[in-house]
Amino acid sequence: MGTATVADILSLKTQRADPRGGKSALEVLHGLVASDMADVNATILRRMQSPVALIPQLAGHLIASGGKRLRPMLTLAAAKLVGYEGNRHAKLAACVEVIHTATLLHDDVVDESDLRRGQDSANVIWGNKPSVLVGDFLFSRAFELMVEDGSLKVLKILSSASSIIAEGEVLQLMTANDTETTEDDYLKVIDGKTAALFAAACQVAAIVAERPEREEDALASFGRNLGMAFQLVDDALDYSARQATLGKTIGDDFREGKITLPVILAFRRGDEEDRAFWRKAMEEGEQNNGDLERGLALMTKTNALTDTIDRARHYGSRARDALAIFKESEAKHALVDIVDFCIQRAY
Amino acid sequence: MGTATVADILSLKTQRADPRGGKSALEVLHGLVASDMADVNATILRRMQSPVALIPQLAGHLIASGGKRLRPMLTLAAAKLVGYEGNRHAKLAACVEVIHTATLLHDDVVDESDLRRGQDSANVIWGNKPSVLVGDFLFSRAFELMVEDGSLKVLKILSSASSIIAEGEVLQLMTANDTETTEDDYLKVIDGKTAALFAAACQVAAIVAERPEREEDALASFGRNLGMAFQLVDDALDYSARQATLGKTIGDDFREGKITLPVILAFRRGDEEDRAFWRKAMEEGEQNNGDLERGLALMTKTNALTDTIDRARHYGSRARDALAIFKESEAKHALVDIVDFCIQRAY
Repeated sequence: MGTATVADILSLKTQRADPRGGKSALEVLHGLVASDMADVNATILRRMQSPVALIPQLAGHLIASGGKRLRPMLTLAAAKLVGYEGNRHAKLAACVEVIHTATLLHDDVVDESDLRRGQDSANVIWGNKPSVLVGDFLFSRAFELMVEDGSLKVLKILSSASSIIAEGEVLQLMTANDTETTEDDYLKVIDGKTAALFAAACQVAAIVAERPEREEDALASFGRNLGMAFQLVDDALDYSARQATLGKTIGDDFREGKITLPVILAFRRGDEEDRAFWRKAMEEGEQNNGDLERGLALMTKTNALTDTIDRARHYGSRARDALAIFKESEAKHALVDIVDFCIQRAY
Repeated sequence: MGTATVADILSLKTQRADPRGGKSALEVLHGLVASDMADVNATILRRMQSPVALIPQLAGHLIASGGKRLRPMLTLAAAKLVGYEGNRHAKLAACVEVIHTATLLHDDVVDESDLRRGQDSANVIWGNKPSVLVGDFLFSRAFELMVEDGSLKVLKILSSASSIIAEGEVLQLMTANDTETTEDDYLKVIDGKTAALFAAACQVAAIVAERPEREEDALASFGRNLGMAFQLVDDALDYSARQATLGKTIGDDFREGKITLPVILAFRRGDEEDRAFWRKAMEEGEQNNGDLERGLALMTKTNALTDTIDRARHYGSRARDALAIFKESEAKHALVDIVDFCIQRAY
């Protein structure tokens, strides 16, 4: 596989039979939890209301423009997996999504030194300070929702996940522009900033369903490993030629000097000349026309992207195997398939 | 009192006999809760530890450089007032201070448009993004501490206070540079950004002591009114000639276009020419040499500062009277005297 591209590797995957009648795993998952998701969306909308107009404006913009809602769907599907029949899961799924939204807002705050770089839309429209303060509001509201739920165990898991996310984000900041960052450092960063909330999102389902600790642990492990796989693929996609041909932006991490696994592998596996290039581009921020392309070529030469996906597969396998203790069900199949979906996102 | 200065008004207060043997009310309060405060400080230091070095660095800088620790002292003194003998109050006092510290960090985040203005030190040293992320970490840690305490009632009060703080901060942002801001708007802002946490800090003491609701309400009212008085005085001090003679910076709010009560009163009570001045200085941000002095003169002409202090006195009186249901004690005297202290801070 020495010279396989990301697309090559991923195409191997698509050759298997499609058991879902043309639907993507995400569509299947969404179908499975559709009615609960309506509750989640309604809860989120209701809880971001405030007489202070800027709050629903900014939060609404973010929610409307926003994402796959993967995390709350995980909570809802995990609740189905463990046979939960109550109604606490939708509220907690909303908490998880609101915490995620708050961290997105804060993640987009630019540093003084970053002003020349590409910026996220909420920031461009409203500026740093409103993003920070509305993020704080959302975060506090998420906690209020959890407190209403009333389970100290759930509160412990989600408040601890929030600390770990912040810790991961700070660690990411500290590794920025540092080509000496190790794979271990990187794994710590993504474990904090991404995997912790995926784990908590799944674990809380077992708690509301009052399932035994082994099921709670299994769901936490599923979520954590899925989160690791998800972030690894995300970081590979930022350098994916396939993404570029689909008209998506690539190279954001490169321009920001963010040290992700593709860079770490290309740097460590490269020769002295390669490393000098990475240092100049990522540490000194001296980037010229053609540098991103050169970086991509070095990643191909060193198999940095394909091996990043390979690492993602490892976590994906662990995620799937963590679900082994649960009997077969529609929910289990949906969760297993979402692992593949997260890894095959390059399509 | 038409032409009395702030210093004149305040000097009236110092002429009364000093029942505290030369100690300031703050020193008396500190003496009352000194051993508990040692616990609070140790808890804060322990909880800001993290393997991610930037977190204890930045948080430590902020805590070390920091403040009177008024909020946690209120929790501790209120616990004494209601005869609490357990050990939960120190942990909750630490939560209150950590929440306050997190909001300070976020309050100092500069907007792109603010880059030319004066900045706070944490920001100058580390930049916006670390301040935001470490603030998030502190905030999450405060929640973890509360969850450990295990009282859903305490969690409800402190998570609700956090939402209200964020709401108040956003409202303040929306009133910035708007000379049409009313006194009612302003009171909503300070009720949210300051008084809510003062109220919660006091109220939780009654909860851990399992005191009846009327004592809980009394302490919440004491805290809320004290917080209002505190913030009103703070906003007057930003224009205080006395502060200037003590070598402290004045006019920060003026330069930032922050609309506080002294400006609101001077604007509303002024003539058309005065209002044109305020609009140019606060809305258009067109400030020249001598403009701060002109603003101060307009405040004197309209009694804006003395009447801001007068409003503070009103809330101070309500705070003192809220404590009427408690029997006389050292703690009660310390709390009553701290009201005067907050109003007399201009010395």
